[in-house]
Amino acid sequence: MIKTWVRIAALGSVFAAARLAAAADLSGNWIATVAGGQGEPQYARVLLTVDGDNLGGTWGESKVSGTLADGKLTLALTDTQGASAGSLSGTVSGDTVTGSGSIIGGRGGRPGGFDGGGMRPRGGAGGRAGIGGGEVVAFSLARPARLPATARELHFTPTNFYGTYSAKNKPALTIFPGDVVHTWTADAGGVDANGLRHRGGDSNIGPFYIEGALPGDTLVVHLLKVRTNRTTAHQGTRINAHAVTAAYLTTAQYDPAVTGDWTLLPEKGIAVPTHPSEHMKNYSVPIKPMLGCISVAPAGDEQFRGGDLGAYGGNMDYNDNVEGTTLYFPVFHPGALLGMGDGHAAMGDGEVTGSALETSMDVDFSVELIPRDSSGMVRAETKDYLVAFGVAGSVPESIQVATSQLATWIKKKYQLTDSEVAILFASELKYDITELVDSQYNVVAKMPKSVLASMK
Amino acid sequence: MIKTWVRIAALGSVFAAARLAAAADLSGNWIATVAGGQGEPQYARVLLTVDGDNLGGTWGESKVSGTLADGKLTLALTDTQGASAGSLSGTVSGDTVTGSGSIIGGRGGRPGGFDGGGMRPRGGAGGRAGIGGGEVVAFSLARPARLPATARELHFTPTNFYGTYSAKNKPALTIFPGDVVHTWTADAGGVDANGLRHRGGDSNIGPFYIEGALPGDTLVVHLLKVRTNRTTAHQGTRINAHAVTAAYLTTAQYDPAVTGDWTLLPEKGIAVPTHPSEHMKNYSVPIKPMLGCISVAPAGDEQFRGGDLGAYGGNMDYNDNVEGTTLYFPVFHPGALLGMGDGHAAMGDGEVTGSALETSMDVDFSVELIPRDSSGMVRAETKDYLVAFGVAGSVPESIQVATSQLATWIKKKYQLTDSEVAILFASELKYDITELVDSQYNVVAKMPKSVLASMK
Repeated sequence: MIKTWVRIAALGSVFAAARLAAAADLSGNWIATVAGGQGEPQYARVLLTVDGDNLGGTWGESKVSGTLADGKLTLALTDTQGASAGSLSGTVSGDTVTGSGSIIGGRGGRPGGFDGGGMRPRGGAGGRAGIGGGEVVAFSLARPARLPATARELHFTPTNFYGTYSAKNKPALTIFPGDVVHTWTADAGGVDANGLRHRGGDSNIGPFYIEGALPGDTLVVHLLKVRTNRTTAHQGTRINAHAVTAAYLTTAQYDPAVTGDWTLLPEKGIAVPTHPSEHMKNYSVPIKPMLGCISVAPAGDEQFRGGDLGAYGGNMDYNDNVEGTTLYFPVFHPGALLGMGDGHAAMGDGEVTGSALETSMDVDFSVELIPRDSSGMVRAETKDYLVAFGVAGSVPESIQVATSQLATWIKKKYQLTDSEVAILFASELKYDITELVDSQYNVVAKMPKSVLASMK
Repeated sequence: MIKTWVRIAALGSVFAAARLAAAADLSGNWIATVAGGQGEPQYARVLLTVDGDNLGGTWGESKVSGTLADGKLTLALTDTQGASAGSLSGTVSGDTVTGSGSIIGGRGGRPGGFDGGGMRPRGGAGGRAGIGGGEVVAFSLARPARLPATARELHFTPTNFYGTYSAKNKPALTIFPGDVVHTWTADAGGVDANGLRHRGGDSNIGPFYIEGALPGDTLVVHLLKVRTNRTTAHQGTRINAHAVTAAYLTTAQYDPAVTGDWTLLPEKGIAVPTHPSEHMKNYSVPIKPMLGCISVAPAGDEQFRGGDLGAYGGNMDYNDNVEGTTLYFPVFHPGALLGMGDGHAAMGDGEVTGSALETSMDVDFSVELIPRDSSGMVRAETKDYLVAFGVAGSVPESIQVATSQLATWIKKKYQLTDSEVAILFASELKYDITELVDSQYNVVAKMPKSVLASMK
């Protein structure tokens, strides 16, 4: 309860000492924050229209009608079915409005947790601001930040390397959709391009606060540049127990002299073992730089370690999270709180040695927002595929979550039936096993854009 | 016990009425069949040299010394460590020898069952003919069939479509390594290119008896041609429960009017829905003809249905089992008993609709044998990859079996250490999820031949 109110205050609204606002123009866009007796605050995009003393507009998916007199407003909300969705009264104070009332409708709680049954966010966050069946709520309205006239080029030098995924991590930079951020990441051990050691443990830079992002939105992250920025990388030299049989595990004879050190030759596009054995003197692999970790803050008060992964992304270790890939994250908190780290110069499927060719990266990115379109689980678009992630507690569950999310996504995107999706999947579905060695598993399901392009 | 002796008789040796063979020339190659008090017969390749009355040579991996007098031979076997491996005496009768004696050493039983710890076949089959620690055995020696002077082109019209994998299925054709067989398969439902219906249920044509194949060998199958031979295919129209969440499964609304019928246009290299919905009027997929089922007879008396899969192959449903791919099977029975069927014009990963674009195929193939090199689980070489199959009871086990088999294979093939394999896997290992909807699961682990090519 206390937390809820503190958060509302932090969003710029003050309940005490509301001053009378003479002739305030309430028309235009607002962000509503609504707090009830329990749980997290809910948010809605509000549009108010003013006609004399009469107010109209929308509140999430509800319609608004109301009055404004002497700096006091009253609002009646009506849902898409025409039924009452609540009544509110408040006081205007400069560019904020605060007040109370009741909002009718199921309390949906936070968005997210992909349910496989549809793209509907569970409940009202970002949609109708439903808290309780007529439960008393407090609300505030604040003006959204204004987009800069032109997108900015921002050069960001990380100073914090967060070892956790948490909404409590203080934003390092606030950015707007369209801004291009030029930055860099340390390797999973915290070492940067200059050999300086920061916090390790798959730490993420940022978080970046995305102006305008609300829970229930989808955050779109464009990886404009992902390139190695030093000549060294390091990998684990034993195969993880999740990837091999007990018989292999117990009989494998690993040579402690093998270092796992790599030398990167980006001008040739290859990496070579730094201390190759006789057999591997001519061995090289193509460099395919990727980010192991990309994240938003997880839902509610949840906190996870840097090596964890979930619906918030995190240590997903997908070897197609490369330059040119676009990622889609469910937003759980205002500002989304984007982070990234854990670069790999190259990585085999499953990260079966517990790490890939770990190194630091130069990263450019930009973001967009898709309001009210959270799928509850990460998705991506690569050069050739639409990709649905399936982070879960076991590989079979990962497969099921990934397949279901991809089906649901494609159904919505192309307005298809389940039968049509089944036709698509029978011949063209592909899976990648991306992460076998961390706290959760990750399998992605994907469909080639080439065959989807013909869809009417 | 009875079965064992029947089998020995079937191999062409008769114990009764051994005639005296004057001046028989025993020198050269033999196939030994050895039967003990229990279990299956064992086999060994035997080479005898004759110097007057003295015999020398090899018996599997053991050395032979002995004498021949008046059509009676005695043999003493010595293992690779120089210890006694048994003593045998027998009678020559024309081109066979029959007799008895004892063979020392652990009874290994059948080969196969990939153990992940090494490429050693479990026990003596194909190696030393060990049955019991000095246990009494009966044996026979028969001459191996002679390779034809030139490889043959054989045109085979299937008449039997076996709905089971079993060593009891009667061979339809005997072929030699090098022969090229031109044949065809029906679809999984048993329908051939002319619309005639044979036995369905993922039935296999054959089996083809491979002259010279012995348990413990590896059968190499070259898929020289795999092409659709009619213009129709059919797929399932619902996504299997193994591939989606319970939420998706229970809320999916499938349209019973959707047929799953496809029209194949091989001259264009594509397949199109025969009765497309409005959304899919322009939809097409590339044809990539593959065989869902390729099999040898499973070990011992085991019998499986056509839709099953295991170490014997069967319904593996790998969408890279295409023209140009070479498969490696463990041999469990003399002649291996190769079968194939279940063609798909195209198939997505996992066969998530329970079937792919099911159709009949024209198939050309040839075989080779690699003596005494069974890995106990199927492997393949495609255009770009070395591929290890991991048929198992769950996806996580499939991953472990496939990864371990690939590691063991590459260690042996390139004489690498476990540490070197770990270096290879960290950046270049790939997985394909091939089969999610049948009685066993199948994940393959694979390594690109391009990076392995540099291995010294």
